[in-house]
Amino acid sequence: WQRMTVNGTEQIKRVFTFKNFAQAMTFTQQVAELAEQENHHPAILTEWGKVTVSWWTHEIGGLHQNDLICAAKTDQIAD
Amino acid sequence: WQRMTVNGTEQIKRVFTFKNFAQAMTFTQQVAELAEQENHHPAILTEWGKVTVSWWTHEIGGLHQNDLICAAKTDQIAD
Repeated sequence: WQRMTVNGTEQIKRVFTFKNFAQAMTFTQQVAELAEQENHHPAILTEWGKVTVSWWTHEIGGLHQNDLICAAKTDQIAD
Repeated sequence: WQRMTVNGTEQIKRVFTFKNFAQAMTFTQQVAELAEQENHHPAILTEWGKVTVSWWTHEIGGLHQNDLICAAKTDQIAD
């Protein structure tokens, strides 16, 4: 995960790679299910063979411990 | 749809808004199904209440008529 600042908001972001669009989309759906379970929602950029997930906490305009937990859970989905 | 240049590649992009994350994700899945049907794949950015779709043709590094057709089909899904 890479820390970065987007529009003044600190975020953590990671790119996950896949063999095709369908596999990327399956991962996107799994991350979306995690987001609903956690009631915490990332930005998910789905492209051919690639999904970029960004976590941050809108309410504080930056990173909260919960973002790091959700990042770890995102990694578990990818494993 | 807004024409823009990303990393030297001309693309068309549109933001679609929704009431929550689940509705945004449903739209993302529908656009993904369109992409597989067309064998042409956009970038889909899914966020809480918002989906940004970008079409371009990788092979020519810019826009092809097919991108405009896929954009119109994306609009039909949103309607």
